[in-house]
Order: sequence, then C-alpha cells, then structure tokens
Amino acid sequence: MQPSVAVIMGSASDRDVVAPAVAVLDEFGVARQWRVLSAHRTPDATATFVRQAEAEGVRVFLCAAGGAAHLPGVVAALTVRPVIGLPVRGASLGGLDSLLSIVQMPPGVPVATVGVDAARNAGLLAVAILALGDEELDARLRQFRARQAERVLSSGQDLEHPATGGARG
Amino acid sequence: MQPSVAVIMGSASDRDVVAPAVAVLDEFGVARQWRVLSAHRTPDATATFVRQAEAEGVRVFLCAAGGAAHLPGVVAALTVRPVIGLPVRGASLGGLDSLLSIVQMPPGVPVATVGVDAARNAGLLAVAILALGDEELDARLRQFRARQAERVLSSGQDLEHPATGGARG
Amino acid sequence: MQPSVAVIMGSASDRDVVAPAVAVLDEFGVARQWRVLSAHRTPDATATFVRQAEAEGVRVFLCAAGGAAHLPGVVAALTVRPVIGLPVRGASLGGLDSLLSIVQMPPGVPVATVGVDAARNAGLLAVAILALGDEELDARLRQFRARQAERVLSSGQDLEHPATGGARG
Amino acid sequence: MQPSVAVIMGSASDRDVVAPAVAVLDEFGVARQWRVLSAHRTPDATATFVRQAEAEGVRVFLCAAGGAAHLPGVVAALTVRPVIGLPVRGASLGGLDSLLSIVQMPPGVPVATVGVDAARNAGLLAVAILALGDEELDARLRQFRARQAERVLSSGQDLEHPATGGARG
Amino acid sequence: MQPSVAVIMGSASDRDVVAPAVAVLDEFGVARQWRVLSAHRTPDATATFVRQAEAEGVRVFLCAAGGAAHLPGVVAALTVRPVIGLPVRGASLGGLDSLLSIVQMPPGVPVATVGVDAARNAGLLAVAILALGDEELDARLRQFRARQAERVLSSGQDLEHPATGGARG
Amino acid sequence: MQPSVAVIMGSASDRDVVAPAVAVLDEFGVARQWRVLSAHRTPDATATFVRQAEAEGVRVFLCAAGGAAHLPGVVAALTVRPVIGLPVRGASLGGLDSLLSIVQMPPGVPVATVGVDAARNAGLLAVAILALGDEELDARLRQFRARQAERVLSSGQDLEHPATGGARG
Amino acid sequence: MQPSVAVIMGSASDRDVVAPAVAVLDEFGVARQWRVLSAHRTPDATATFVRQAEAEGVRVFLCAAGGAAHLPGVVAALTVRPVIGLPVRGASLGGLDSLLSIVQMPPGVPVATVGVDAARNAGLLAVAILALGDEELDARLRQFRARQAERVLSSGQDLEHPATGGARG
Amino acid sequence: MQPSVAVIMGSASDRDVVAPAVAVLDEFGVARQWRVLSAHRTPDATATFVRQAEAEGVRVFLCAAGGAAHLPGVVAALTVRPVIGLPVRGASLGGLDSLLSIVQMPPGVPVATVGVDAARNAGLLAVAILALGDEELDARLRQFRARQAERVLSSGQDLEHPATGGARG
Repeated sequence: MQPSVAVIMGSASDRDVVAPAVAVLDEFGVARQWRVLSAHRTPDATATFVRQAEAEGVRVFLCAAGGAAHLPGVVAALTVRPVIGLPVRGASLGGLDSLLSIVQMPPGVPVATVGVDAARNAGLLAVAILALGDEELDARLRQFRARQAERVLSSGQDLEHPATGGARG
Repeated sequence: MQPSVAVIMGSASDRDVVAPAVAVLDEFGVARQWRVLSAHRTPDATATFVRQAEAEGVRVFLCAAGGAAHLPGVVAALTVRPVIGLPVRGASLGGLDSLLSIVQMPPGVPVATVGVDAARNAGLLAVAILALGDEELDARLRQFRARQAERVLSSGQDLEHPATGGARG
Repeated sequence: MQPSVAVIMGSASDRDVVAPAVAVLDEFGVARQWRVLSAHRTPDATATFVRQAEAEGVRVFLCAAGGAAHLPGVVAALTVRPVIGLPVRGASLGGLDSLLSIVQMPPGVPVATVGVDAARNAGLLAVAILALGDEELDARLRQFRARQAERVLSSGQDLEHPATGGARG
Repeated sequence: MQPSVAVIMGSASDRDVVAPAVAVLDEFGVARQWRVLSAHRTPDATATFVRQAEAEGVRVFLCAAGGAAHLPGVVAALTVRPVIGLPVRGASLGGLDSLLSIVQMPPGVPVATVGVDAARNAGLLAVAILALGDEELDARLRQFRARQAERVLSSGQDLEHPATGGARG
Repeated sequence: MQPSVAVIMGSASDRDVVAPAVAVLDEFGVARQWRVLSAHRTPDATATFVRQAEAEGVRVFLCAAGGAAHLPGVVAALTVRPVIGLPVRGASLGGLDSLLSIVQMPPGVPVATVGVDAARNAGLLAVAILALGDEELDARLRQFRARQAERVLSSGQDLEHPATGGARG
Repeated sequence: MQPSVAVIMGSASDRDVVAPAVAVLDEFGVARQWRVLSAHRTPDATATFVRQAEAEGVRVFLCAAGGAAHLPGVVAALTVRPVIGLPVRGASLGGLDSLLSIVQMPPGVPVATVGVDAARNAGLLAVAILALGDEELDARLRQFRARQAERVLSSGQDLEHPATGGARG
Repeated sequence: MQPSVAVIMGSASDRDVVAPAVAVLDEFGVARQWRVLSAHRTPDATATFVRQAEAEGVRVFLCAAGGAAHLPGVVAALTVRPVIGLPVRGASLGGLDSLLSIVQMPPGVPVATVGVDAARNAGLLAVAILALGDEELDARLRQFRARQAERVLSSGQDLEHPATGGARG
Repeated sequence: MQPSVAVIMGSASDRDVVAPAVAVLDEFGVARQWRVLSAHRTPDATATFVRQAEAEGVRVFLCAAGGAAHLPGVVAALTVRPVIGLPVRGASLGGLDSLLSIVQMPPGVPVATVGVDAARNAGLLAVAILALGDEELDARLRQFRARQAERVLSSGQDLEHPATGGARG
C-alpha cells in the first residue's frame, strides 16, 4: 500500500520524540513511511525524496526538527501538499528556537505547526486532514475522540477516593 | 454553494488582520463564511455554530484570536475537522502570548498553527488541505506557487539597476 | 456539606502539582471537590459540570492547566463566579506558555491568575475570597498569616549559629 | 457610602491605563476610591492607607503598577483581603517585567493577577468577588455577560455584508 | 564590631544560594549579619529591621529573593543606603522573573542588581562600595583581583598539555 | 573640583537616554564628567581613561550601553571602583539584550545594574554610594526622598476631583 | 570583475535593511552582487544561483531574512563557502524569531550570524574574511578601524561643552 | 607550525563545551592553540595575547564565553581578524544571555556568532574561512560534507526495520 504520510526527521537522534507520531498513524491504520533527511546536511536527497514522494501519492508531510528547524519549511517549499511541522526541544532555549523557526514562515508557504515535542498531535493532525477524504478514517477519529473523553473522565475517579480527594466538608 | 471553510475570529477588532485569509480563499474560489464568535464571551453560540457548521459540510475551520487565544483550541475540541489557528498580535508581548496559547495544545486535540498575524498563510494552508480532494484547486495552487516564484525573482530586477545594486566591482 | 470550591485540573497527571491547593482548602475547613475535566478533550462534560456546580452553590472555581492552558478561561466563560487560574509548568518553555494562556484573557471575562505551579497560593486566594463573607474563615486566615510570619522569622534563627552565619566581625 | 474597592496605582502616569477599572466599578455601582501610592516612594503612606482602608471596610484592593511592579504584592502583605494585581506595560520588555513581578508571588501571599493593561478585567474580577455576597450585583453581572455576548454576535453582522464578508462561493 | 553589611534573604530555602555572598564578606573581613525576612510574609519585621539596622550603622543592604522578588525593592524603599539585589532562580522561568522583579525599579528608588544566583558578585559589589571609604579594604580588593587574574591564567596551563590541548600543528 | 563620578556612554546616540543620570548628579552637586568611549571601537582609549580616572580620584563609574552592552563590564574589569551599568534599549528585543549583557557578569567582577533606560536611577545609585562617605550628600538624599514621597502623594489629589475619580458610591 | 560576495535577501521588502551591507562592500571596493531569492518561494532558483555563484568564484555569501529565516541556512547547505546570516526584524517578536532561526544551526553546517538588522556588521564581517587573503583590503580595514575610533572619540567633544556636559563641580 | 586559529575561552570550566571546536580543527589538520583568558578577570593578558597572536599570524579567533559573554566582542575590538563567537549556556536563562551578549555587537565591530554550545560549528566555520585560501583544506571540507550527508542518510536505515519503522500500511 502506498504511504499517505511521509514522516521526516532532521536527525536520527530525534527518533524517540517523533515515534509517537508514527504510532498514532499506525493506530489509525494510515500507511506511512519515515525517513531521516536533513535540510542542511542532505539538501539534495531531501529535495529528491519530497518530489518523488509527492509524485508517488504522499498526501501529507510530517517534519520534525530542532534548533534552527528548517526542515518543515524546506519541505513546504518543495511540495504543495500540507506540511505539518513538529518542533523538537533542544538542550537550550526550551524549544522556543525550533518553534519560531517552524511557525513564522513567510507569506506564501505555510507550515501547519504543532506544539514543542507534540508528536502525538502531529500524527492526529495528519489523520484529521486525511479523514476529510476517507469516511472510515473519519469514523475512527470520532471513536478516538469519544474514548479519549472517557479516559479523561475516568482518570478523575481516583480523586474521589476518601484518602486522596473527592468532595469533602 | 456550501462553505468549505469557516473563518472565525474572536473579536471584530481582528477583522483587518484576518481579512487576507478570506481574500486568499476568495482568490482560490473556495466557498467560505466568516463569523465573530468568542470562546469566552459567546461559548454557547460558538459551540452551536461549530457543530452545525461541521454538520452542514464545513471541512476546515480557520480561527483567529489574540492574547490568551483560546478560540482555535475551543473549536478544535468541538469538531474532528482540521482547525487552523491564527495568532493575532496584541499591544503587549509581541504576539508570543497568542502564539503559545494556540500552538501548545495538549495531546489529543491538535491545532494547525501558522505565524503571528500570518493570515495569508492560514488561508493558503486551508487551500492546501482542501486541494487534497479537489484536482482543480490543486492545479490552482500549483499555478499560484509558480507565479509567486516569478514575482520574487522579478522583484530583484531593480537591484541590478546601476544606481542601486547589481554586480559591481 | 455543599462544596464552596470546585478544583478542576485538565489532566490527572497534574494531580501532584494541584494537591497543595486542595490541602490548603482542607486546612481551612473549606468544603471542596476536585475533578479532572479537560477543556479540549471533554468540552461538554466541562460545561455541564460548571453550570451544575454553580447552580448547586459552588462559589469559587480553581482551575489548573498546562501548555495552551485554556481550562480556566473556558470555565470563566461558563460562570460569573470568580475563577482562579493556576498555570502548570510543562517540559518546555518553563511555564511561560501556560501563564500567558491563562492570564492574558480578553476584556470581559477575567481569570484571577496565580504564579506557575503556585497551587498553595491558588488555595489561599480562594480562602481570601470566601473569607469576605465568613467571619470564622477570616479569623483563621489572620491566624494563618501570623503563624506564617513567625515561621519565617524563626527559620532565620539557624543563620545566627556561629558555625553557619549570624553577626560576625 | 463606604468604598468596597480601593484602586491604587503606583504612579499618576498610569491613570489612563487604570481608568477603565474604575469605570467598570462605577458602571456596576460599586463604591470605590482611587489613590496614587507607591510601594517604593511612599512605603509608610501605603501601609497606613491599606490598614486603615481594610479597617474601614474595603473588601477588595485593586493595585496597578509597571516595571518591577511591587505594589500589588506589598499591599497583599498588609491585608488579608483579596488583592487584584494589574500589570502595566512600560516602554521596554512589553509588560513581561510587570506581569512576572506581580504574578510570581511566593507561597503564602497570593495576588489575583489579570493581563497586561487589562484594567477592565481587573474591575470585573472585583465585581465577581463582591457579587458572591450581593445578589443585586450578581444579577447585574449576569446581565452584563448576556449583553456582552449580544454585542459580540452583532459585531459580526457587518462581515456578512456582500462587499466585505459573509458566506460566498 | 558593628556589621557594615546586612544580608537579608526572603526565605531560608535560599540559604545555599546566598552563602557565597556571606563567604566573600568574611574573606574580606567585612562585619556582617544575615537574616531571613520576607517582604510579603513579615512586612513589619522587615521595616523594623531595616530602619534599626540603618540607625545602627549598616552601610550596605544585600537582599536575595526569587520569583516576584520584591525584597530588595522593599528594603530600598525603607533606607537611603545602597541596596544590592540578588535574583534567585526558581523552578520555572529560569530566573527571568526574579531578575526583572528586582532590576526594573521605578524612578527614584534604585536597586544595584547583580546576575541570577550571582551571590559571590553581590558580596564583591558590597566590598567595592565599602572600599571607597576604607583603604585597607581597597588594598585587599586589589590583591583579590590580582590573585584572581593569576588563577584564571594558571587554570589554562592544563590545556597546553600535549594530550589535551595547547599549540599543535 | 575633581569629578567623583565618570559617566561613560558607548555611543553619542545614547546621549538623551543618559542625560537624566547626569542631571541627577548635577542636582545633588556631585562633581562629574561624561565621555563617549566604546568598549569595541576605542578599547585603548577606554582603558587609558578608566585607569587615569581612577588614579585621579573618580569614585564611581556609570556606564551606559545598548545591544551586546559590554562597556560596563569592560570598565569593571579595569577598576576596583563600583561600576553602575545602565542598559539602553535598542530597536529590537526590547532592551533584554543590553540588560542581560550587563547584569550577567561572571564571578569576580560585578556590575551594579539598574533597569532598562533607567538613567535617573543610575544617577541616584551613584549618589547613594557616595553619600556613605559624605554627610551633606546623605542629608540631601534624605530630603530628596521626602520630597519625592510628597510629590507622589500630591499627584493623586486630582483623582479625588469629582469629575475624574476619588471616593464615590 | 568577478563578485567576491553574493548578497541575497529573502524578500525585496528587506532591501532597505540590507542596503548598508552592500554600502560597506562598495566602500571597501569589494566586488559584489545582490539578489532577491527566497528559500521557500524559489528553492530551485536559490540552489541554482548558489552553486553557480560558488563555481564562478563567489567567496562569501551574505544572506538576510526575517521570521522563520531559513535562507542563510539553506544557502549554507548548498556551499562550503562561509555564509553570513543577517536576521531581519519583523513586526512581531522583536527579531528573536529570525535570530534564533539563523543562529541555532545543527552540527555540521554553520552560519556566521550577526545581530538583528546589523547589516553594516554583516558587510564588515565579509570584509574581514576576505582581508585574510588580500593585503590591500586588510590595510583598508585597519584604516577604517582607526577612523572609526577617531569618530567615536570626537563625537564626545560636544559633551564637554559647558552647556551640555563635560567636567563640572 | 604557526597556529592559524586561536581558541580562547573565558573560564576553564567551559573546556568540555569548547573541546569539540578544537577537535574539529585537529580533524582538519588546522594548527591551533587554546587558552583560558577572561575579558573581565584578565583584561591586560587578553589584550597582550590577542595582539601578539595576530602579529604572529593567527588568522581566526574562536572565543567561547557564557553569561554576559564579552570575550568575543572584546577580542574583536583588538583585532581586524574574523572573530567567531561561541555562546556557552549557563545554569539560568537557557543560554539566551550569552547568545545576545555575543551576537548583538554595535556597528563597526562584528562577531561571527554560532549557536548556543555549538562548538563543532564554531570549528567548522573557522575551517570554511581558512579554506578560502587553502585548496587542500577546501577539498577536505567538501569531503567532510559528503561523508556527513552519507552518515545522515545511513542513520535512517534502522527506521526501515520492520520492528521500528519504515513503510507500512
């Protein structure tokens, strides 16, 4: 099956941060591939991959990078497909550098940015975009939301336990 | 024709900032509507509108807000459709408040965030998402990109003018 | 006894950060309840709870959230009761994101914001508000302040110990 | 009539920023007084005023200051009444200095902080606190919220005008 | 001997951060005392101490505090003596909150601010101020500077070791 | 008369920002000189001046600079006299760059930093330091503080005017 | 004459900010060219230009961009020649976004970054690099530095004028 | 062999952060020396070293410093050679202080700044500058870039392993 989503990260060291995005796609049964491609260290391979991927049917690009995080923007320059940018927090500056490097794109080439290290949300955004043209995926997304709401509500049950919380007075 | 995109802003005072997003949608021939709805001042009207809009076929929500900019996240909580968040700069803090209030969403409910006051990019992101299922729109987006590249390149012609720039030495 | 304060947190993972707020309320004998409700993952349950809680006599809402921390603002949109917002620090950005997401509310719907992770102060602010209409609570608050001053002053006694501090020369 | 709210600002130059807070109190018929008192330039007058004001029945203190904005915290140290802190933006640092100087209070002495230059919200927060013990004020606050919602919704009517906005396509 | 410097910290928990300031004063033979006094939790004891200390001959106040760090400014409001402010880093915001809360004082009441957690420099600044009127102290400060320069230069000797650094090529 | 204070600024363009510091010294009758000397563009002239000034009896250096504001630190490296650092706000970054460049000095060489553009406070800090060894100056400083308190209190009189403020209700 | 420096800006709207860099190169007689090329809107033209420019003898690239400023990094990925990055301040965030987007490059591909809007310094850095292999340019740079020092020193003459500054007392 | 690069750090405690810069120079066979010299604690030794080093043929200065990081700027004031500034992250403020203290140099004296703790890039920038006049070094730099690209691409191979990543669907 052709991948619908290409997950690209700027460095193999970001793998653990990016993994939840891939896990979400797998949970939803979205065909995907993931690659390490650097906007700065492998500019030609990046351009070749993005153009070929678009030609072969990739519909959403999900790009993670840290620091002066150019990968999402560089990919967005090479394709008209929606590009999701995932800022990765580095050792300094708390992720503000990667967030601003991704979100503040110039007019004409947007990147759909999610929160710092928010890989799970990056995956879910890809799902939401693809669900526009896929009724089954749309149904799965609605079920996911409902289950998620249940999990939040049930997670508060323990608080009601006399020893730890709940109504008192 | 049914609107494909609902543009919502938290305050009528944001209208001029948001207008380029609407202009982009119009340029691309994307049916849209725009509304002033406040996550905080009209929570019920917001919920009613979002749910009805989704039911009636809105495919992308584009939400602009400033300060503690909750509107995009609140809308994202009410729909499974992709929500684009447009941070609006206020008088203080340079727009950092609205950017962080929009992009740093908790796991489970993503918002596709664009740059501060980047209304044009918000509109283009909506177009890119819709173009996945609309060949004509896809073609227009490719033409737009090509024309945009030409405009950038021609904008540099003046620099070459002897009096102001160009190769010298 | 009817709870006077509803403590709501956006995620069960914030429980340890929020616990000191609940502990303060218990120390002062203020009836309270606490719940996990997410502005984004359980918007309907949040609205239902807040409106019912206000109807049943809750006088102050104390809401804790991190990241794009919308919970306090969303609750404030649903009630005229005072809402105390407690920003919770996440892994990135040092809590600046949650602080700005809570404090920078638009005109018309204020949130009484305390410091990042300042759960104890959130609880004390609720006590101070309730003490306006409760003489016994007012007296307890005055005693608390007096004891607190004594504790600060006595905590400096060790500094005077020859080995570690005190006047020298 | 005894003032219920004391509005204090650190410098007469902040008067225009603070005025909307006073205007809100007047709109709601809340008795108030306002004073210029500086935590740093008039520490004794500040202490004298706060203690006397509390003794004479002031129920809420609303304190505005910029820069290293100590006034709200200094007042909070002198009274058990709720203190609302209003950060005023200065020429540099976009108001971040006054916001952090007010909101990041140490454990034991909270300040209920509103947004930078958010005088109107400071006034509304005072109203919400006082409305807990005043049914008439509570009713006025509910009416205010309802009218506010109407104003937001009607402010969007113009957008629907063919020339400028509304559904198209 | 009368203390020349009063070292005041807002919380006993800041003791380890402040200790190097006291150590510097002891190294230089400057008589000093140190106290825990909180601008917010013990406002009266703070005022009493500062006024009495000034009356008894304290010439420099060195005040350490974190978060909304008001102590240095509050002390500066109570004395005409030079006040040195030492910002202490808290768990969130990297010390920016305490730095801004101390340094951005309003016109009329300055605080001589040093770097975040820079207790040693706070002590040295007190020494430099006192040395203006004390030739022996002035001589000791010059010796300290000379020894410090030697230590820096000799600390680089290891780099020259073949295995780890030095000139190569 | 020998100058007691040397006021140095990194660029003649900072003159208007620095002028209030000089004005304060003149008001207090403190002998001073001011110079334009750049840590980066005139390093030798800076070193020569500072060493000669110290030798000739300058007791306090007051140094203003913007951007990567090295002047105060560079001067502090050349003298044991107290150095007051005055951060000047530039067009970008709101003065945060100059503030951090001045205040975050390494251990061993402190700079007494005041707020961004806070020239008046820089002058007053110099006065407070010099007043330690000058009873007349000390008296003038106390008078200044008293007059300042009066000015603040009287500045609030207008607020009490029926049309604009004061107690109502 | 072959250009030694290629000045590239991401948008023609940055022309006035970039012009001082070109002016410096002209003052020093360094052959240069300047172009508008966007990393995002004209990725192919950018790559073609950079590779051809390097082949034709360009020795230093000077790249200016604002917002998510990728141009310097993208150029650095395409050439081994030194790339100077000039961050341009946008309407929001005070230039912090462009600074971080340029300076925080990943390991392996450096960009020599200068200050926000510091076009003159960008030009001077290019001159300093080229002067390493050009004795005449080296001599001119030394003359420039000497004249610059004189200008700074003479700019302070006015201060000495009795009416406005100079030694007094 | 004469060193081409002088690596200077402000404190021996920065040695581990700086070491990768020296390692890069060694990998490329660039003759270098490294020294501990403090702009603030050893201003004279710094000036003597820089001027002598330039006279003896050092072509690039690479300076690392943290906090109010003046070393690179101070060195740049003493030489016309290119100066590379390496900001070192301290315990507070995430390195923003050292970055701004280095990059925001005043007009006339640039510093070529790299990212926070980006020692490897500082070394590579020195190599790129020196390679302009050294064909062998230029060749080595091109080989390095090619090998680096290969390493990035091969680092992504593991992702393709069925258990952990790769195309699926």
